[in-house]
Amino acid sequence: MKLYSYFRSSAAYRVRIALNLKKLPYDYLPVHLLRNGGEQLAAAYRELNHDAVVPTLIDDGHVLQQSLAIIEYLDETHPQPSLLPGSPSDRAYIRGIALQLACEIHPLNNLRVLKYLKHTVGANDDVKNAWYQHWIRSGFNALEEHLVASRRSGAFCFGDTPTVADACLIPQVFNANRFNVDMSGYPTIRGIYDEAQKLSAFADAAPDAQPDAE
Amino acid sequence: MKLYSYFRSSAAYRVRIALNLKKLPYDYLPVHLLRNGGEQLAAAYRELNHDAVVPTLIDDGHVLQQSLAIIEYLDETHPQPSLLPGSPSDRAYIRGIALQLACEIHPLNNLRVLKYLKHTVGANDDVKNAWYQHWIRSGFNALEEHLVASRRSGAFCFGDTPTVADACLIPQVFNANRFNVDMSGYPTIRGIYDEAQKLSAFADAAPDAQPDAE
Repeated sequence: MKLYSYFRSSAAYRVRIALNLKKLPYDYLPVHLLRNGGEQLAAAYRELNHDAVVPTLIDDGHVLQQSLAIIEYLDETHPQPSLLPGSPSDRAYIRGIALQLACEIHPLNNLRVLKYLKHTVGANDDVKNAWYQHWIRSGFNALEEHLVASRRSGAFCFGDTPTVADACLIPQVFNANRFNVDMSGYPTIRGIYDEAQKLSAFADAAPDAQPDAE
Repeated sequence: MKLYSYFRSSAAYRVRIALNLKKLPYDYLPVHLLRNGGEQLAAAYRELNHDAVVPTLIDDGHVLQQSLAIIEYLDETHPQPSLLPGSPSDRAYIRGIALQLACEIHPLNNLRVLKYLKHTVGANDDVKNAWYQHWIRSGFNALEEHLVASRRSGAFCFGDTPTVADACLIPQVFNANRFNVDMSGYPTIRGIYDEAQKLSAFADAAPDAQPDAE
C-alpha cells in the first residue's frame, strides 16, 4: 500500500494509526501542504484526489479517499484486530464519536478554512486562534460528557482496546495541545490520550515520527 | 423508531432518505433549531445528544447520534435494500463521497458556524453568503470531477440505485439551490438530483414535506 500523507494532517494521522494497529506495512509518500503553494494542489495529485486533500491510500490499484472511508475499507479487507467491534449499536456509538470529531471539530480547523478565514474574511491572528480553540472546546465539552454518560469507555473510547474512535480522537488531542487548549476539563479524553501513547501503533503514527516531520 | 429532526437540517434529511429507502416507519419528533434560542440546547435533548445537534435516532432503546453512523446502523440492522453495495473498494468510493459532503462542505455551513461567523468574527451578510457559497462550490467542483472520472456513477453516484452517497448529496444540492449557487457547472450532480426527485423516498424526505415545515 501507498499512503499520501503530511506529517501534521489529522486525517492522515488517523489512517496511519489504523494501518499500524492492523500491522499493515505501507510506503509513505509525503505531500507538503504548504510548500510550493501546496503540493496537494498539483495536477498529478489532484488526479488521485479531486478534493486536493490528504490522505489518499493506494491499495492493489484502488485509489481511496477520505480517512474514515479508508479505515472502513481496511477494516473490511483486514478484519483483525477489529477497529469497529461489537453489536450494531456499539458500532454506531464508535462511529458516532469518530464522526463527531471528523465532522464537528476537524473541518472547521482545516488549513484551507483557516486560510480563507484570514485572507478572505480578514480575521486577524487573535480571531483565528479563538476560532480554532472554540471548535475544539465545544466539541470536547460534548465528547467528554458523552464518554462519561455512555458508560462504554474504558482505557479507550469503547472498552479497553482501540477503535476508529480513538484513531480520530488522538490526532485531535494532538492539535489541541499544539494550540494550547486548556485540557484540564477533559479527564476522560486525557486519560485515553495518555493510554494511547503507550502503544507503538499510536506513537509511530505521531507527526514527529514521520519521515517528513520538520 | 423515533427520529429527532428539523425540517431544514441536512443531516436529518440524510437519515430521512435512508429510512424511506428502507421503508422503515418512524415517529417524527421536531427539534426547532431557532425557536427559544434553539430547542437542541434544552437539557432534556442534550441528554440524548451531548453535541446538541440533530438528528438523534431512538431504536429499541438505543440512542444513536451522527447521521452517517445512524445510516450505517440502519444498513447493518436492515440490510435490504443496501445503501452500501459492492466490493470493499466500491464501498470506499461510496463512503468517500458521503464523507466528502459530510466533512468538507456541510460542517462549514452549519447554523452554529454561521452564527459564530456573524456574531463573534463579525462577518456581515455579504461575507457570510460568500463563505456559504464558497464551500459548496469548492466541494461540488471536486465532486463533479470525481463522479465523471470514477466511471462508476449512473443515474446515482454509484450505478443506478441510490446509496448513502446520494442520501448525502441530495440535501447538499437542496441547500445550494436555496442559497442560489449557480449549478450550471455541475451537470452530473444535477442529473443525480433530478433522478432522485422521481423517487418517493427522496421526495417524502424533503424539508417541505416534513410536519414541522414552515
